[in-house]
Amino acid sequence: TSPIDVAEYLFTRLRQIGVKSIHGLPGDYNLVALDYIPKLGLKWVGNVNELNAGYAADGYARIKGMSAIVTTFGVGELSCVNAIAGAYSEHVPIVHIVGMPSTSSQKDGMLLHHTLGNGNFNVFADMNKEINCAIAKLNDPREAAALIDDTLQKCWIQSRPVYITLPTDMIQKKIEGERLKTPIDLAFPTNDLARENYVVDVVLKYLHAAKNPIILVDACAIRHRVLEEVHDLIEKTNLPVFVTPMGKGAVNETHPSYGGVYAGSGSQADVQKRVESSDLILTIGAIKSDFNTAGFSYKTSQLNTIDFHSTHTTVRYSEYPGVSMRGVLRKVINQVDLKQLSVAAGPQVENEVAENEDKSNIITQKWIWPAVGQKLLKENDIVITETGTANFGIWETKFPAGVTAISQVLWGSIGYSVGALQGACLAARDAGMDRRTILFVGDGSFQLTVQEISTMIRLGLKPIIFVICNDGFTIERFIHGMDAEYNDIQEWKYKDVVKTFGAKEGTYRTYTIKTKEEVNTLFANPEFNSADVLQFVEIYIPKKDAPRGLVLTAEAAERRNAGA
Amino acid sequence: TSPIDVAEYLFTRLRQIGVKSIHGLPGDYNLVALDYIPKLGLKWVGNVNELNAGYAADGYARIKGMSAIVTTFGVGELSCVNAIAGAYSEHVPIVHIVGMPSTSSQKDGMLLHHTLGNGNFNVFADMNKEINCAIAKLNDPREAAALIDDTLQKCWIQSRPVYITLPTDMIQKKIEGERLKTPIDLAFPTNDLARENYVVDVVLKYLHAAKNPIILVDACAIRHRVLEEVHDLIEKTNLPVFVTPMGKGAVNETHPSYGGVYAGSGSQADVQKRVESSDLILTIGAIKSDFNTAGFSYKTSQLNTIDFHSTHTTVRYSEYPGVSMRGVLRKVINQVDLKQLSVAAGPQVENEVAENEDKSNIITQKWIWPAVGQKLLKENDIVITETGTANFGIWETKFPAGVTAISQVLWGSIGYSVGALQGACLAARDAGMDRRTILFVGDGSFQLTVQEISTMIRLGLKPIIFVICNDGFTIERFIHGMDAEYNDIQEWKYKDVVKTFGAKEGTYRTYTIKTKEEVNTLFANPEFNSADVLQFVEIYIPKKDAPRGLVLTAEAAERRNAGA
Ligand SMILES: Cc1ncc(C[n+]2csc(CCOP(=O)(O)OP(=O)(O)O)c2C)c(N)n1
Ligand SMILES: Cc1ncc(C[n+]2csc(CCOP(=O)(O)OP(=O)(O)O)c2C)c(N)n1
Ligand SMILES: [Mg+2]
Ligand SMILES: [Mg+2]
Repeated sequence: TSPIDVAEYLFTRLRQIGVKSIHGLPGDYNLVALDYIPKLGLKWVGNVNELNAGYAADGYARIKGMSAIVTTFGVGELSCVNAIAGAYSEHVPIVHIVGMPSTSSQKDGMLLHHTLGNGNFNVFADMNKEINCAIAKLNDPREAAALIDDTLQKCWIQSRPVYITLPTDMIQKKIEGERLKTPIDLAFPTNDLARENYVVDVVLKYLHAAKNPIILVDACAIRHRVLEEVHDLIEKTNLPVFVTPMGKGAVNETHPSYGGVYAGSGSQADVQKRVESSDLILTIGAIKSDFNTAGFSYKTSQLNTIDFHSTHTTVRYSEYPGVSMRGVLRKVINQVDLKQLSVAAGPQVENEVAENEDKSNIITQKWIWPAVGQKLLKENDIVITETGTANFGIWETKFPAGVTAISQVLWGSIGYSVGALQGACLAARDAGMDRRTILFVGDGSFQLTVQEISTMIRLGLKPIIFVICNDGFTIERFIHGMDAEYNDIQEWKYKDVVKTFGAKEGTYRTYTIKTKEEVNTLFANPEFNSADVLQFVEIYIPKKDAPRGLVLTAEAAERRNAGA
Repeated sequence: TSPIDVAEYLFTRLRQIGVKSIHGLPGDYNLVALDYIPKLGLKWVGNVNELNAGYAADGYARIKGMSAIVTTFGVGELSCVNAIAGAYSEHVPIVHIVGMPSTSSQKDGMLLHHTLGNGNFNVFADMNKEINCAIAKLNDPREAAALIDDTLQKCWIQSRPVYITLPTDMIQKKIEGERLKTPIDLAFPTNDLARENYVVDVVLKYLHAAKNPIILVDACAIRHRVLEEVHDLIEKTNLPVFVTPMGKGAVNETHPSYGGVYAGSGSQADVQKRVESSDLILTIGAIKSDFNTAGFSYKTSQLNTIDFHSTHTTVRYSEYPGVSMRGVLRKVINQVDLKQLSVAAGPQVENEVAENEDKSNIITQKWIWPAVGQKLLKENDIVITETGTANFGIWETKFPAGVTAISQVLWGSIGYSVGALQGACLAARDAGMDRRTILFVGDGSFQLTVQEISTMIRLGLKPIIFVICNDGFTIERFIHGMDAEYNDIQEWKYKDVVKTFGAKEGTYRTYTIKTKEEVNTLFANPEFNSADVLQFVEIYIPKKDAPRGLVLTAEAAERRNAGA
């Protein structure tokens, strides 16, 4: 036997799964647990607040596969509940560890700090039930190891957050460590064979019969880790492939089969035509939410659709619960008969930067996003966009190969992207990958979580941050209140935050960009492109300018809000 | 009949109750509702994030009696859940209005932005159940008015937050407006007469018999609005009166009966002696939490105690549920027989600034807090202290008359004080009171919610902000990890945040204070004291220096966390 402390067990498991840095903030109920982090060769991030830490953990998990955040009871955990709900909504696996008062204090119902004053120590865990795929209370050393393993497994397999409470008197309780020699089983459960084969046959029947089938890749293909299957399907079939806004980055956009972004009437005209005239759409990991579909504007029929999901498959109107896409896709790849497959080409996408169509030097939404694809992005960059004009503008950006996109199109909590940037940038470094991490965030959103820039400085990260300066909440203006005061914000000296948060001379560069010419110069600047220090760019775009996709989506949102 | 929109009804009720400014952030589910705010002569604050908005609403309510915050579904409301839980814990009445998707979208289970993607629109309201004293869903115009009235009444009477959902399609629904002519009944319910009289008799019996009774005033005396009764009791009886840390500001500390702060072994020696040797302690609104009692270090006996609460009275071990302090105290004041009352004087408190005891010019915790009372504070100032050294240091500050103290000793969420400062400062202005609002916040805590300085700038508020620069989480160091990395923070150029957040030259002043001499000069500076612009002071105190009360409380916390 090799006795080991509960906290050591937990953090060792996290390390085994690939978590190298732990996000969060200290609090007296977790301090002793934090002592284990450096001892086990892990890195403590030490974020500036818990919401930001949650967002950062989300960004970290999207790059590194999984992440962990440690908070303190009540005040800390509730501060990040929005980030956890977001991770649940968007299928991101975060292990949230909450430092709790000791089991004896709980039993005695002590009137402790960070309680509601009513002796109820379960309220916060209860609040977490619907936004985590598992809740584990480490109250008993005898079951701690099994509970930890089971919970981390659920986190990975369901790709959703889990919530673990660690009371102060449990941290150092001894448990059996031998178990650590066997890694947690992270294999995805396989489908029932007969059912899977049945579904594969049905899928192949429709696929072989279709005249102009296409593939539409969406968020859950990324989050539920079937990109290999997606790539193999594209390579094998050469079917035209499209992505939804949430599916951006899932496929190689330089591949000849790539046809562009489909978002209903928010798509480019040729994309919309090609997708909506297809007689068979294979959607992979679809999340057909309002902002992912330009306001539910798909004009496709379920009769022409096969939906592959992590928990079920739907062929036209037939549902196959429990039949997960992984196994089905692999067999479809293996069994598809190319001779029976009819491949009708899709449109070709280019980053056509309408070279100064409007004959003005002012930076417009219409101009900047293709320019980002054409002149800024490089292979394997990580691109993060915030809810606002950026999330819709990026539809118009064709990515080089290997680019990963991060955004929160479904949950849409503003400020997310700044935290996520810290996490994603750190994850890339932890993975030993030399990837540039580039953020586009609105001025309004940036203000919510600005302090996480401080963490990036302290960790020596080297992101490129674009703050879109357009005098406030442009996305909201297009939904309601174009000139309303509530859509205005305080004007900050945005780039001064870097120095104010303690960045040392020479460890950062800042830029203010107000014209197309300046954009072109910046994007061509080798020093800038080398991304050797933290870089901060203020980019000015007019207040009432919005990307095409946003204008449509905003109109639909306003109509729906009115109850229409 | 005078038909009126649901939103107009709601905001009119808030205005009638004395809420002049509405905190919060816009989101597409609340935008149409926000249009009513200026129309009704209310002010929209427009905070920088929702957690800060919640803290600000808390600060506003503590000064103005009640407050309101508007957020958007999911992302907005969950961002401030920690502030709401704090208000519940600390008995602060906040009306939280959440803009929801339309009732028809809810019914159809639409896959909308800001949802978990599972069609469940009740999750977030359910999460709020245990941290609000009422939940009201305005789904039906026919019951909206009555539901609003009932909910606001509960908020006021129970002095705790309430949660109201306002779906987008309900905002403009017409309801009967005549009802607005009758104000909501905010009278506190009276006690059952027979029970009340019985309790009064019991209290008087013990009070007349006691040899050296004292009064101990705590948080709920403030929060449940019995300060008038407390003052009258002091005036009538001249009994020595003490306050707990959470009771600071409840009584006039220049009154001859005032004896100081009692926090068990964290008290000054003469205070501890006087209180603990008393044969009858009348506690008013007690919250005997760990941080309010220097780690449960009272050496008083329940046999010598009468506890007055908002929901019950406890005399020794006899409990009287439902007998609220207001009525009992009033009768005790009226009926106490001064001839039978034995008044033994308590200690006299002075702000004795040990004039440079340590012969050094370094600012110490021991030196600064009495100095604040002696040289800085003026009558009617509002003083806000953050969890950290400040919350414990303030025990040593004797207040001039009329000072209101704001802190979160029970909930203890760091960053709170910065938001609360915005709210308190605005509330004082809204009330037409010319009160200086002064914050003491640790450098660590300040970072969590720094952006609310931006709101203060935008609103033209004129607080005095002291950031205690001591290289990180000193309070945590004293609990565990004196030199641990997790207790360090990134060093900011704190005072530069004011300019960075857009304050115009001439509308603010900043100071860096590193010696006792500089403190003395600043505190004597008439320009500084006039508080005519926003003022920001960096005050440097050594990293490992903590107030006496904190050292004791931290030791107790570490022992309890270890399960001892
Ligand atoms: C936490 C949170 N609060 C409020 C909202 C509502 N909201 C959505 S977008 C937005 C404005 C974003 O403005 P900005 O970042 O400046 O973007 P842009 O101007 O580029 O549209 C707001 C307030 C939200 N989504 N999340
Ligand atoms: C939201 C939240 N996160 C974490 C904590 C744990 N915590 C309590 S006090 C504290 C440190 C405060 O440090 P600082 O503000 O610098 O105060 P000082 O150095 O004066 O003690 C921390 C991290 C908390 N109380 N609330
Ligand atoms: Mg903007
Ligand atoms: Mg500090």
